[in-house]
Amino acid sequence: MPDAARCRVPAEPASRRERPLLMVFTGEGKGKTTAAMGMALRAWHRGWPIGVFQFIKSGRWPTGERAAFQALDAAHRDSGVGAPVHWESLGSGFTWLPRRTGPDPAELAQHGWSRVAQALATQQYTFVLLDELSYPLARGWVDVEEVVAALAARPGFQQVAITGRGCPEALLAAADLVTTMTKVRHPFDAGHRGQQGIEW
Amino acid sequence: MPDAARCRVPAEPASRRERPLLMVFTGEGKGKTTAAMGMALRAWHRGWPIGVFQFIKSGRWPTGERAAFQALDAAHRDSGVGAPVHWESLGSGFTWLPRRTGPDPAELAQHGWSRVAQALATQQYTFVLLDELSYPLARGWVDVEEVVAALAARPGFQQVAITGRGCPEALLAAADLVTTMTKVRHPFDAGHRGQQGIEW
Repeated sequence: MPDAARCRVPAEPASRRERPLLMVFTGEGKGKTTAAMGMALRAWHRGWPIGVFQFIKSGRWPTGERAAFQALDAAHRDSGVGAPVHWESLGSGFTWLPRRTGPDPAELAQHGWSRVAQALATQQYTFVLLDELSYPLARGWVDVEEVVAALAARPGFQQVAITGRGCPEALLAAADLVTTMTKVRHPFDAGHRGQQGIEW
Repeated sequence: MPDAARCRVPAEPASRRERPLLMVFTGEGKGKTTAAMGMALRAWHRGWPIGVFQFIKSGRWPTGERAAFQALDAAHRDSGVGAPVHWESLGSGFTWLPRRTGPDPAELAQHGWSRVAQALATQQYTFVLLDELSYPLARGWVDVEEVVAALAARPGFQQVAITGRGCPEALLAAADLVTTMTKVRHPFDAGHRGQQGIEW
């Protein structure tokens, strides 16, 4: 890596540039969750404690992103680089799998949101990733106005990234950054199955 | 992390599902590079050796994603988890910075592409990330037809992800997956500056 003295940017003091953002990655295309995970890599390097809350994916699948952030969390503990990473899987599975018998998804989502609301109110993390929050919002399991109000009222300096298709308009309107991932082509359309290393 | 025995998916043998893809993340919206980096996390966990080639960003900035993958590469060396990560910064700086005096960007891009072409022909990596390749293609520094032909002829099992706005049509036509990141809102439009942890 280059040494710090060779980095000419930013010339402006960080404090002048820094601003907590609400970022939303939505749309039908592939890349919403991975875009937010890639941003979390930057947060990690910046030394911002990271909290990841996944509203759909269950903890039963060891996704690649989770395993990688577990390694980054360990690297932080072992050698002080980066930042700590906390990860909570709040859902019962992938949306494209048939519903399994198990806990009520609405209850799971409400419980998940209460965890997030508490983390925001107590400033537990500096980078908060709410993966697939759009689903419980779109289904009415979690109240959109409550979420928007809690995000708007979050104290201190907390970057928030939200992912998922079908994000409610009220959430988009409240965001500082919105990117829509538009699907132009996807291998599933050509009959190909998901594969480890690409889909998870 | 959950133990492997609890993971019920995939039921199908991996070999039946696995297929090398050409993936493109393009458009004006934020999240192209980070989406590809997030996919590389999955590749890392899958044990696929990763080669990242950045066509615009220079090595002078220690970006968060580079630092994080450096830590993941170290984790692989130290404890065998994940996969090795090789990273080459081939450019001279961010596109939104004034051009510095320095090497000719066309020569840099051509040199960069020759490195990639060699890596593809020799199957050096299993996940190849060509960050911001669209820029030298759009500027005519690297020949689109040559790139498309080299990608189509790549031997063995090599996943390829390409990022950058303004991807040439011939490249999009050759891809298995294309996502366009559409900018709905961006903090820069409201006069805000880039900040470490978000933009790099």
